[in-house]
Amino acid sequence: MNRIITIGREFGSGGRELGRRLADALEIAYYDQEIVTEIANRTALSEAYVHQILEHRPISAFPIRIGRTLHPVPGAVQQQSADIFRQQCDIRRKMADTSDCVIVGRCADYLLRSRKPFRIFVYADMESRIRRCREKGPEHEGLTDRELRQHILSVDRNRAESYRHYTGRKWGDRLNYDLCVNTSDISPRDAAAAISRLLR
Amino acid sequence: MNRIITIGREFGSGGRELGRRLADALEIAYYDQEIVTEIANRTALSEAYVHQILEHRPISAFPIRIGRTLHPVPGAVQQQSADIFRQQCDIRRKMADTSDCVIVGRCADYLLRSRKPFRIFVYADMESRIRRCREKGPEHEGLTDRELRQHILSVDRNRAESYRHYTGRKWGDRLNYDLCVNTSDISPRDAAAAISRLLR
Repeated sequence: MNRIITIGREFGSGGRELGRRLADALEIAYYDQEIVTEIANRTALSEAYVHQILEHRPISAFPIRIGRTLHPVPGAVQQQSADIFRQQCDIRRKMADTSDCVIVGRCADYLLRSRKPFRIFVYADMESRIRRCREKGPEHEGLTDRELRQHILSVDRNRAESYRHYTGRKWGDRLNYDLCVNTSDISPRDAAAAISRLLR
Repeated sequence: MNRIITIGREFGSGGRELGRRLADALEIAYYDQEIVTEIANRTALSEAYVHQILEHRPISAFPIRIGRTLHPVPGAVQQQSADIFRQQCDIRRKMADTSDCVIVGRCADYLLRSRKPFRIFVYADMESRIRRCREKGPEHEGLTDRELRQHILSVDRNRAESYRHYTGRKWGDRLNYDLCVNTSDISPRDAAAAISRLLR
């Protein structure tokens, strides 16, 4: 069985960089945005739309009451979300079948649990997440620190809801991971080097 | 400033072994039971009693109402707990002043926070904690798995209460640590080797 390493991460924690450096150090494949691209190719949906679906829990339809039970109306959006999620599972399994790899985000720790992945969760305090977002590029230039904080919390809330929706588990709960790394004072580079030592 | 590494750990997680191996790998001092012994020597209390005080939150006296405010009655036991806790702080600081060291348990991550310790939390799933307790020795031989599970949960509950009492923080909350290590599938030996790489 191939060695699979999954990375869950708080927004702005540097989890993506850690994952990429870890893949480099171990000389194995790295998958992140590739999943979105592949689904977009398969479905002819835009990458932005696929990303949106994967990062957010699909909005439930308003339930209607029939007799004593509640049945949600299966709408087109829910159907599409479910299809995209299935595509994602399929692609992830193919990635895991192909070679050793690092897979970032999107419930991979749960979806690939039968392959016994090594599951990493990356987090940091708010101050260093804001700093990291600022350093990364001009994307958040127009936001005040307060607005950026709100944005970070909102992305994480979506990730937590999506994770709970698809896995039934609590996002960031330490028992769902083998290692939780606080990148407030550890650089993703140093963390990747040490973890590669553990996994070699 | 000396390098200080603190280890918080769930009962049965192998945190103590990880700490000892890490100190060996880094060739620095290791403190665990030494703190209890030193307090016992200073106070002429038994080691068992000191251990009991440090692992448990002191029981609050029944509060009495004076005017509108609530004042606990300062009893002899509370006074002794507070004295022991102060002794502990003093001894820990002396240890931290003396040389680089690994310190296991007892709120060290919080007490020594001004020294910027590297804070590790060690945890594991219940199954592997029960297995580890059984492997460690005959201490829990008389207990069924169910009773051992209760014992593990009870020790952890005391640790959590004691931590909250003395620090005002939540025990095991990932933001209080730099690294959280799940020893269900990682051996303390391998974890220590990788962490020493990070800290060298």
